[in-house]
Amino acid sequence: MATRKLLLLPGDGIGPEAMAEVKKLIDMMNADFNAGFETEEGLVGGCAYDAHGQSISDADMDKAMAADAVLFGAVGGPKWDGVPYEVRPEAGLLRLRKEMELFANLRPAICYPALAATSSLKPEVVEGLDILILRELTGGVYFGEPKEIIDLGNGQKRGIDTQVYDTYEIERIAGVAFELARTRSNKVCSMEKHNVMKSGVLWKEVVANTHKAKYSDVELTHMLADAGGMQLVRWPKQFDVIVTDNLFGDMLSDVAAMLTGSLGMLPSASLGAPDEKTGSRKALYEPVHGSAPDIAGQGIANPIAMIASFAMCLRYSFNMVEEADRLEKAIASVLEDGLRTRDLMSEGMTEVGTTAMGDAIVAKYKALA
Amino acid sequence: MATRKLLLLPGDGIGPEAMAEVKKLIDMMNADFNAGFETEEGLVGGCAYDAHGQSISDADMDKAMAADAVLFGAVGGPKWDGVPYEVRPEAGLLRLRKEMELFANLRPAICYPALAATSSLKPEVVEGLDILILRELTGGVYFGEPKEIIDLGNGQKRGIDTQVYDTYEIERIAGVAFELARTRSNKVCSMEKHNVMKSGVLWKEVVANTHKAKYSDVELTHMLADAGGMQLVRWPKQFDVIVTDNLFGDMLSDVAAMLTGSLGMLPSASLGAPDEKTGSRKALYEPVHGSAPDIAGQGIANPIAMIASFAMCLRYSFNMVEEADRLEKAIASVLEDGLRTRDLMSEGMTEVGTTAMGDAIVAKYKALA
Ligand SMILES: [Mg+2]
Ligand SMILES: [Mg+2]
Repeated sequence: MATRKLLLLPGDGIGPEAMAEVKKLIDMMNADFNAGFETEEGLVGGCAYDAHGQSISDADMDKAMAADAVLFGAVGGPKWDGVPYEVRPEAGLLRLRKEMELFANLRPAICYPALAATSSLKPEVVEGLDILILRELTGGVYFGEPKEIIDLGNGQKRGIDTQVYDTYEIERIAGVAFELARTRSNKVCSMEKHNVMKSGVLWKEVVANTHKAKYSDVELTHMLADAGGMQLVRWPKQFDVIVTDNLFGDMLSDVAAMLTGSLGMLPSASLGAPDEKTGSRKALYEPVHGSAPDIAGQGIANPIAMIASFAMCLRYSFNMVEEADRLEKAIASVLEDGLRTRDLMSEGMTEVGTTAMGDAIVAKYKALA
Repeated sequence: MATRKLLLLPGDGIGPEAMAEVKKLIDMMNADFNAGFETEEGLVGGCAYDAHGQSISDADMDKAMAADAVLFGAVGGPKWDGVPYEVRPEAGLLRLRKEMELFANLRPAICYPALAATSSLKPEVVEGLDILILRELTGGVYFGEPKEIIDLGNGQKRGIDTQVYDTYEIERIAGVAFELARTRSNKVCSMEKHNVMKSGVLWKEVVANTHKAKYSDVELTHMLADAGGMQLVRWPKQFDVIVTDNLFGDMLSDVAAMLTGSLGMLPSASLGAPDEKTGSRKALYEPVHGSAPDIAGQGIANPIAMIASFAMCLRYSFNMVEEADRLEKAIASVLEDGLRTRDLMSEGMTEVGTTAMGDAIVAKYKALA
């Protein structure tokens, strides 16, 4: 039996409640399907600061580095608004991303048929939508130097940020895009602004070269990032995998998320480079939503984004494609049955709490097996 | 009688056909309403290259600098694909923007009720939408230095762009935003990424200071640009004026345009600094659509974006607010009457050509007077 090492970092707010539902799934998959998951748990965010004054401890960082995958809940809340900047809750996530070198951020935009009506877009535009925005996460204008505000005198200041991409950074994210596309509809659209940015010129060139050298079986198109934003709104189903830089990915993944009408439902994954020995990538999975401190502890949080993040973990860290498909189908199916947590509640549906939603998905998963 | 000096630059493709309909309006307003427009005409784009080998001549640049406002059609087409880079059709527009110092790009996103059904968004989300994206047009990452691709050896290159904003650049665009808001619903939302960009930190600070110093009667909010993209898709009517930098404005104005479902209908304006003596701003008005060479000369082009650009000219260059309102109402009204150019045609509507659409708007304008 394979051993699969997971580190669970539930974090703050609704993180622990959502993670509890994933634990049920893990226990069931171990008991009933011999999945061989071994879990450890750690602290991240405000709860870590309360325990030991750091947003994540060195010991928990070590566990993250040793795990096959990290499941991350959510961090932050008003309780920690006053803590020093370098130990604020978000710093824990940034440290994980940095030390695990998670350069590839996967943001699926999936529209469950049962929820298509909640989108601001017409149902026919978004129903069944299943696209993947792949955002470069460790380079670009958010990290390049110089990055400063200079005092020019006479009341004038100058704000500077630097967009920088090297060939190898573009090559590795392009490689992930093509590999992901092969497991999906085999189409990649690369977005940049080569008409006005030199980094865009290099981006386009390197993506094209990578395609030609190793992935010419995948369909590749290029689009200007602003036109890409337009096309996402006009007819998003034209896309399969979109690969883009850190800044454009920040914008476009959020626009794509909003198309689905259910932001609180979306999972994400952040992947690192493959290990030289094992070929497996460091990986962290987390819901797109935040810690929602206003509803924490009330048993009403929607656990679906966290569970869907676990489905991504099955797919991308453990190649358990069948199980991932089944879990995603279980989610869609309980929604079709009319079950809704409070955030999704609408007339004629059945309102359930966090644990009841988790139980229903566990039961559905078993029924689908 | 006031004299109002207009330079018309019809350009290439469908530009001249669309401009012909604006000329009708000008003639009518002079004849029937004593508007006092004086027009000159010049060449820009491919037609200028054909005439004298430049994308715009010095003589026509002089006319642009001397005019109260420039009306610009569209430039480019496959005929000029092979001309040298520095005299390509687009270079004419870039020279105008640069020498006239047009730092403020106004991109209204208006959804005519009669066309709400053509949007990919639900009618109730976009019907009657009337927001204005104000994009800084001469600074930021598209112009900052260094801007280059460096060869690092070993097959590695580095692409660099530099995002730079100085206090005065932010101050002047913020001033335009607040002044525009005062003529509308008196609300400004400023968008940046201060959480990850130093230029965003400065942007937010300068906008807030400008507001406090001179425009505290206007409602000001701040939003992260990625959240802004989301909110544009979720519920765009929450906004009035959005002010943002060159890059975010490039993205967000296109997303906003696509919300309306009728990209070919949208006007734009680009404004410069006020003249020290007269207080009037240099200004250029142009449709968002391109030169559409595939349908040029067939009499089927939609002139509405060009006519709506002239309405912006009335409003912003000549303070002819009543006339601008009337012209915009005339456009909405002929659409309600069911008139459609081919690009907008749908069942039950009446298809008309370019001149018939222009004639109908002229007649409606007079009827509304
Ligand atoms: Mg974002
Ligand atoms: Mg654009």
